[in-house]
Amino acid sequence: MNAYDIILKKRRGAKLTEDELRFMTIGFTKGDIPDYQMSAFLMAVCFNSLDTEETRALTLAMMNSGEVYSISREVGGICIDKHSTGGVGDKTTLVVAPVCAACGVYVPKMSGRGLGHTGGTIDKLESIPGFLTDITHSQFVKIVRETGFSVMSQTKDLVPADRKIYALRDVTATVDSIPLICSSIMSKKLALGADGIVLDVKVGSGAFMKTVPEAEKLAESMLSLAKEFKKRSAALISDMEMPLGRAVGNALEVAESCDVLKGRTKGALRDVCVDLASNMLYIAGKGDIESCREMANKAIDSGKAFECFERSVSMQGGNTQALHKYSLMGKAADTAVVYAPSEGYISAIDAEGTGLAALALGAGRRRKGDAVDHTAGIRLLKTVGDYVYEGDEIATLYTSSKADTEQIAADFQRYVLITVSQPRRREHIFSVLRA
Amino acid sequence: MNAYDIILKKRRGAKLTEDELRFMTIGFTKGDIPDYQMSAFLMAVCFNSLDTEETRALTLAMMNSGEVYSISREVGGICIDKHSTGGVGDKTTLVVAPVCAACGVYVPKMSGRGLGHTGGTIDKLESIPGFLTDITHSQFVKIVRETGFSVMSQTKDLVPADRKIYALRDVTATVDSIPLICSSIMSKKLALGADGIVLDVKVGSGAFMKTVPEAEKLAESMLSLAKEFKKRSAALISDMEMPLGRAVGNALEVAESCDVLKGRTKGALRDVCVDLASNMLYIAGKGDIESCREMANKAIDSGKAFECFERSVSMQGGNTQALHKYSLMGKAADTAVVYAPSEGYISAIDAEGTGLAALALGAGRRRKGDAVDHTAGIRLLKTVGDYVYEGDEIATLYTSSKADTEQIAADFQRYVLITVSQPRRREHIFSVLRA
Repeated sequence: MNAYDIILKKRRGAKLTEDELRFMTIGFTKGDIPDYQMSAFLMAVCFNSLDTEETRALTLAMMNSGEVYSISREVGGICIDKHSTGGVGDKTTLVVAPVCAACGVYVPKMSGRGLGHTGGTIDKLESIPGFLTDITHSQFVKIVRETGFSVMSQTKDLVPADRKIYALRDVTATVDSIPLICSSIMSKKLALGADGIVLDVKVGSGAFMKTVPEAEKLAESMLSLAKEFKKRSAALISDMEMPLGRAVGNALEVAESCDVLKGRTKGALRDVCVDLASNMLYIAGKGDIESCREMANKAIDSGKAFECFERSVSMQGGNTQALHKYSLMGKAADTAVVYAPSEGYISAIDAEGTGLAALALGAGRRRKGDAVDHTAGIRLLKTVGDYVYEGDEIATLYTSSKADTEQIAADFQRYVLITVSQPRRREHIFSVLRA
Repeated sequence: MNAYDIILKKRRGAKLTEDELRFMTIGFTKGDIPDYQMSAFLMAVCFNSLDTEETRALTLAMMNSGEVYSISREVGGICIDKHSTGGVGDKTTLVVAPVCAACGVYVPKMSGRGLGHTGGTIDKLESIPGFLTDITHSQFVKIVRETGFSVMSQTKDLVPADRKIYALRDVTATVDSIPLICSSIMSKKLALGADGIVLDVKVGSGAFMKTVPEAEKLAESMLSLAKEFKKRSAALISDMEMPLGRAVGNALEVAESCDVLKGRTKGALRDVCVDLASNMLYIAGKGDIESCREMANKAIDSGKAFECFERSVSMQGGNTQALHKYSLMGKAADTAVVYAPSEGYISAIDAEGTGLAALALGAGRRRKGDAVDHTAGIRLLKTVGDYVYEGDEIATLYTSSKADTEQIAADFQRYVLITVSQPRRREHIFSVLRA
């Protein structure tokens, strides 16, 4: 068996065996197969794809490239994982995890650092003074067991194959391949070993998937892969044409999540979080979907979810005072206001544009290893459906970095569409798929 | 401009600009673009191809990556180059070049070392004691001018981009792409600067192209590329289901070529060589195709072509005595006979199998840099169409290497098909294409 023949086989569209996929994965991870062969292979996969069995074999090989845990057994209860394909203002984990925890379902969440518009969940949580994300596996298990959830930074010993393959895909234009995306996500989920997983597949300008059919295709592949591995799963196809909620930026998003957990903020963000949480409770076997939704809402309205959040943050070293007095998460050195350029209904706020503005303000990373400005970001004072008059304040920009806020404000204005007619009401969730 | 965007653009099937193709080619040759990006790019090209304009731009960028000559001007007469896509027992250059030279058309031939079944033309010529292939450009020009032709080893300063790209294609299963093949061949031909080129596209089990339509497609692309660069050209689609001629192996092939040049050997090899030479004379403007064929035959029958061969070999340091007394090229330490396993007509001798047997005997290279056993190879005593009785000698195997000749003889028997019915007469040339 050699890499050349395997590349050629996939180039010709033939089906690879489990052994061949393991040979490529392990060989590359160990350094026996060079980058240039792996990148040719990955490009051939982008064109000729992998079928269900091949995707399963690749996922398995990747999973077994490092440490494999049985988190449910370690925690001693049903654990449900969650994965979002990522979007602008996507802080759902911060709400969904404590909601599920409050309902008796464990959420052990390993998360990566973000690259792009804003930080990842890890970066967001690090806005809270003292909060530690680089904890050990046993600390992680302990926090999940005692508080119901924990979010930790992904360790190097978990699926090293994915780290190495992803780094290569990232520079060879081979990221957007459904089997490669599926195996990347699922290998990590399987290596952790939760009982089920709920996927949040975002679709729209601020997401990786631009159309609902594309997103559904990815979701279906993920669900069928989860089924292969006997994991319960569901997928939500959710809107990412506009940012989720009103805050984009690390500390700003933690604050907004606290507001949702305290029951203060209604609207799209809460709706999506409740949908996600109720699906997680549902696949955990907590009842039918309607009673699960009721449980999730009750967890918020009763204050139990917020209590869970406080307990977990506290156990992870975070100063819980900051969850009440948000300014403890730091104050931006500079702010700027974005004004409505004309009168009318706000019909669209482009998610991608908003993300780029947040990135320019310092909220995200352009390169791996860059520092993130936790105070930076955007708060929307008006949102889609609101009627504004020329000169109304529609957003505030925050930054502690060297950023040309005037220029960013001018750019941001162009991402807001103001129309004479009232926009039609948008759905936050386009569809829910279950395996 | 960056490599990532160019890879993505080609992956998506878009057309690349001349600047983009130059950026990739020069960037990779200089080492600014890493192997893994180039191999992903090449794989994307294998799937989405390059159109005529893109192929032209890539060829031009490759050509300009190193030294560019004007061989016709340097030599002071019409120069016609020749290229064969390679096959088993393909020694046509050794015959065709002196035939054209004898007819007043210069043939300056740069050639690579072979990888596979047998050596390349360079390796074959090195069977002649004293023959030097690593000569300087000015020596090369001098020999061409004085004897009508010369075959030299390709220098490192000629199209360095091709050397680097080909080495990568060779290990990433991206060799068989028509635009990549065309640009690889033509960039070298253009960098040398002959006035025209005749292509010998082999088709069959012992060749790269397995079917006539495939071979014609490659030939058409090459011809259209040659036309773009205002080079006269023609392409022959020739048979490689069985080895060409009766000798396979370096010294054995030189001997067979001498026999053809001396007018002693008729048959497929001479026919193909005369066809190639007459097409070279034709595009050199020596007359219509029929009179060119007559000239080529006359050059052989008059002994002029062989005289040209002797003069060129002599100027290149070779012992011309070896062209008369073939044993001066070395004598194999070991021989074995292959017997007919049954009675009947020889209907096929598999070219690929014959090549593998020659390789096993030591006639070729498994890896770059391997030494070649010049004495090793196969001589066919019977060929397709001959009637044999069980136990008749059908071939002799030669080797001076450690080779299991008994095993190779047994294997070789299986590559010879013996049938009750007489096989239909095969064409040596399937078609001739002209731009």
